[in-house]
Amino acid sequence: MAQQESNGHKRLQDESLKAEQSGYVVGADIGGTSLRLALADLSGNILARSSTSTVGIRDAALIVSLIRDGVESLLKELALPLDSVRAIAAGAPGITDPVEGVVIATSYLMGWRNVPLRVLLEEALGVPAAVDNDVNLAALGESQAGAAKGVDNFVFIAIGTGIGAGIVLNGQLFRGNGWSAGEIGYMLVPGISEQPAERNKPGALEEVAGGEGAKVQWRTRWDQSKTSLSKDAVASEIFDHAVDGNPLAQEVLELSARTLAYAIYNIWLVLNCDLFVLGGSVGLHPALRDATHKFLAARSIRVEPRLISSSLGQDAQLMGAIFLAVDTAKTRSLVVTP
Amino acid sequence: MAQQESNGHKRLQDESLKAEQSGYVVGADIGGTSLRLALADLSGNILARSSTSTVGIRDAALIVSLIRDGVESLLKELALPLDSVRAIAAGAPGITDPVEGVVIATSYLMGWRNVPLRVLLEEALGVPAAVDNDVNLAALGESQAGAAKGVDNFVFIAIGTGIGAGIVLNGQLFRGNGWSAGEIGYMLVPGISEQPAERNKPGALEEVAGGEGAKVQWRTRWDQSKTSLSKDAVASEIFDHAVDGNPLAQEVLELSARTLAYAIYNIWLVLNCDLFVLGGSVGLHPALRDATHKFLAARSIRVEPRLISSSLGQDAQLMGAIFLAVDTAKTRSLVVTP
Repeated sequence: MAQQESNGHKRLQDESLKAEQSGYVVGADIGGTSLRLALADLSGNILARSSTSTVGIRDAALIVSLIRDGVESLLKELALPLDSVRAIAAGAPGITDPVEGVVIATSYLMGWRNVPLRVLLEEALGVPAAVDNDVNLAALGESQAGAAKGVDNFVFIAIGTGIGAGIVLNGQLFRGNGWSAGEIGYMLVPGISEQPAERNKPGALEEVAGGEGAKVQWRTRWDQSKTSLSKDAVASEIFDHAVDGNPLAQEVLELSARTLAYAIYNIWLVLNCDLFVLGGSVGLHPALRDATHKFLAARSIRVEPRLISSSLGQDAQLMGAIFLAVDTAKTRSLVVTP
Repeated sequence: MAQQESNGHKRLQDESLKAEQSGYVVGADIGGTSLRLALADLSGNILARSSTSTVGIRDAALIVSLIRDGVESLLKELALPLDSVRAIAAGAPGITDPVEGVVIATSYLMGWRNVPLRVLLEEALGVPAAVDNDVNLAALGESQAGAAKGVDNFVFIAIGTGIGAGIVLNGQLFRGNGWSAGEIGYMLVPGISEQPAERNKPGALEEVAGGEGAKVQWRTRWDQSKTSLSKDAVASEIFDHAVDGNPLAQEVLELSARTLAYAIYNIWLVLNCDLFVLGGSVGLHPALRDATHKFLAARSIRVEPRLISSSLGQDAQLMGAIFLAVDTAKTRSLVVTP
């Protein structure tokens, strides 16, 4: 009798578990130049994905309607009904309050101020939504399924056009009092401008070490007689050119790497966390990682932090968004008035 | 009947509570130039204190015997028996593993390496002992009874001969993977030397902004015709001289303050914690705090961190040691073989 009851109870649990585990989630990575979407199951496996240009689009409502259209396309592609989506999570390129679901301020490129992104997404899609800073989501992705899996303390450094960090301490994202922990693009290290920062301008560190910084430094040094590469080259081309042996490009790479090494060293002094994961389109370049490591090793006395490339690569932010969406699907429900 | 039982139970609890609350603890602050001791009750009230010079004493066993002698004197002063001491906690000026109770490495001034200070103290005094980094203990003191009471996230910056930080995140000391979180004396900011750090030398930041840095900068600029102050003046004298209007001293103060402001700004970018508490003999100078605040305000765009002086002053580390000793008395007991 007790055995039967127990079995009956177990069967009920299994069924309720199955009900909980059915359905899908959407992860969205809102960037300055593209919007990336992925539809995943509740185990975080991506079933379909899409990418749309956001060049020239700054209006949050327009971005949200692009997301809704994209989700509908992904569902159609997989022949899934609209109501099979259980939750969505989106990463935004700026300071984001994940509790209120508000994007407080995006980087100088986009110009959002106090955008209630969570509510906009919930209204557009009719499912629970969650939002966070994109770099924090990338750190979450690396922590759950990437290069920092199971590591309690690490810093994810995203280097694209700009530079930002996602900080995981004691196994949790650390966000700071104003949700802006890790905004290291303004860090002050030797060799950078001491001019006070200006609104809507790159930070001091970003003027030298990020994708924009590398472009600026290249243009400053460019000389037709000393390189075959265009004056308008982007960071990855400049770093490739450095690997090929061009002295001008090597100068730019060294400057980027030294400046980045100083920033990592400073963060390491503060947090004494021994793993740094480099990500972002520019941060993933192996030549930047190797040159940065060289400067870091020369700087450290007793020990030095480990510096590795993101294993999720360009998917880190999207994977973080998916994990957040799965968590949202499992912990929140939404009462929607039609 | 139920009432009586309940009362009886309460009485037992009260008595056991009283037994737990009797006795005293010792807090010790081991510095490069002095050893400070305090005897306190289990509520953390200091009943007696003493200070001894440690100039020229580098041997850990000698420091421990000074502590034992000092504790005996304090007990004699209050006519208390030896066995009324329940626990001791000591702050050491270096990287300390509080779990193993080992001082891994002291600053360049003292030269300790892997000193098992907790065991040494337990053997010498026959009571449970706890050890931690002195700046961490100062942060604990400010957090429990000082300027940062009840603040979840803050950074205590101790500026004496050198510079170090104690970091409290989510209400807990954050120590890092190698127990060296907050070792900001080596931080790299604009205007400091980019030479790699050397063992047993001040860090880059300390060469400019700490007590030693101010002295060095003063000696470099000193000119008999431009000041009445000695070439061998210490930081507090130089800062006083700056307040009195001497341009040479003002230069040194401004350099210290600007460098310190850069370091605080960098920590703030990483942690986004909005309170910084300045302590230590040099850090407590109001002119340094005010000048640092000026540079910090000029640097920040949207918000700026609050910068205040330690309210426990020179007692911060001692108070932290007392709180740690009280905690140790309440949570640990020691089986001593005679």
